[in-house]
Amino acid sequence: MRIQPKSTEGRRGSRRQPEASRNAILRAALAEFAQEGLAGARVDAIAEAAGVNKALLYYYFRDKETLYGATLENFFAPLHQRVMEVCDRPGTAGERFLNYAREHFDSIAASPHHGRIFMGELMSFSRGGKTYMDRILSNYMLPIGMRVLALLQEGVDSGEFRPVDPAQFVPTAIGSIVHYFLTAPLRQRFLKLMPMPEPSIEDRRAAVLDFIAAALFSDRAAGIKLAARISAAPPSRQPLKPALSRTKGKRK
Amino acid sequence: MRIQPKSTEGRRGSRRQPEASRNAILRAALAEFAQEGLAGARVDAIAEAAGVNKALLYYYFRDKETLYGATLENFFAPLHQRVMEVCDRPGTAGERFLNYAREHFDSIAASPHHGRIFMGELMSFSRGGKTYMDRILSNYMLPIGMRVLALLQEGVDSGEFRPVDPAQFVPTAIGSIVHYFLTAPLRQRFLKLMPMPEPSIEDRRAAVLDFIAAALFSDRAAGIKLAARISAAPPSRQPLKPALSRTKGKRK
Repeated sequence: MRIQPKSTEGRRGSRRQPEASRNAILRAALAEFAQEGLAGARVDAIAEAAGVNKALLYYYFRDKETLYGATLENFFAPLHQRVMEVCDRPGTAGERFLNYAREHFDSIAASPHHGRIFMGELMSFSRGGKTYMDRILSNYMLPIGMRVLALLQEGVDSGEFRPVDPAQFVPTAIGSIVHYFLTAPLRQRFLKLMPMPEPSIEDRRAAVLDFIAAALFSDRAAGIKLAARISAAPPSRQPLKPALSRTKGKRK
Repeated sequence: MRIQPKSTEGRRGSRRQPEASRNAILRAALAEFAQEGLAGARVDAIAEAAGVNKALLYYYFRDKETLYGATLENFFAPLHQRVMEVCDRPGTAGERFLNYAREHFDSIAASPHHGRIFMGELMSFSRGGKTYMDRILSNYMLPIGMRVLALLQEGVDSGEFRPVDPAQFVPTAIGSIVHYFLTAPLRQRFLKLMPMPEPSIEDRRAAVLDFIAAALFSDRAAGIKLAARISAAPPSRQPLKPALSRTKGKRK
């Protein structure tokens, strides 16, 4: 995602384009927080990059902390919504679990900035600092975790899955999805030193879903085939862009 | 690992116990860097926690950066040594790959502090800051990565493994090993909110090796059985403590 320092339609420093201004601020904030962290980020720099004046920024977001919280919400709220939606679809536990894995993968792949912000939060949280993690945990991670654990148990009970322990399998599957993105800068350096091509995001998604299915399904061949189908399916809604417009209309 | 603020044998502020002093400094530095990061860590606090005076600390480690580099070396050098050793053992590619996974798991499980330091390094590296990552990458990660990639290819070629792409499978397997430890504080909070027990480290190791084997081996049942055997085997050498004494004798 490229940050445009100035809007091509002129400055957004008016309240006549509330949706565009709010989204421009959120996009600029995302890049700034990913690079500088909460402590190091400068509101001036965010307003400048968004092409709005600071007064407008503070009109939408009370202070830097509120804006930071909004960038996290902006990742986890749509992820939560999508995961719940695919988990409640008709279909076998296997179809729904692989669709969950795909949604999780696509959400992270769509926004490397959020991965870095999350890593910063995780580190502050590990050190006992002030973070938004508790809010994110109770509003989003816990409901997603419980839903996905129940889904795995459903597949184990029906015999579609091997008799794995969901409390172990879920964090393992999440690690296999997420860690790749957190270590992206390392891999890029690694690939500079080695004559190997960087795999496409589609190939990566296929490999992750294949890995999970091969480890999970009682009928491995059927699971692998299903994973390939789900991985290659067109996205249900533009999953490769962050959903910046979810509050659309609210302030109109 | 508990940090002892003072040695029970009196202060270590002499050069008569060089090994004990050096290890006490490294242990104290590990805890301080994990909690405060390189920028926030205080050499005074490290010397105090190690029960040595600052002059002795600077005698062993020229400055804070050197000490920081030594704590990273102290994790990656033994990991590198162990991984190379298991990869060069006799046995099938499957036996060696699962033994590699076990060594990697045990090394991280033995030192949560190193996990947090690594996460800090990864974040600085992602933001383009000054880090030790390039040195760690070329001295340890690259050789480990190349060795493990070759091992996977060997198993694919012999038909012991499914025809996976090693360049995809290796990062996925590493994610399934590592991510669990990076997110440990989150999981502990999660488990406080949910009535679920925290799994033992032995159960976790068994689950990870089972996951990898189930996804990898052409003969899945045989792979799962092998993973259970390797996971339950007694450690080849004390793998659940960080190897703080690897320079033993050098300064005597």
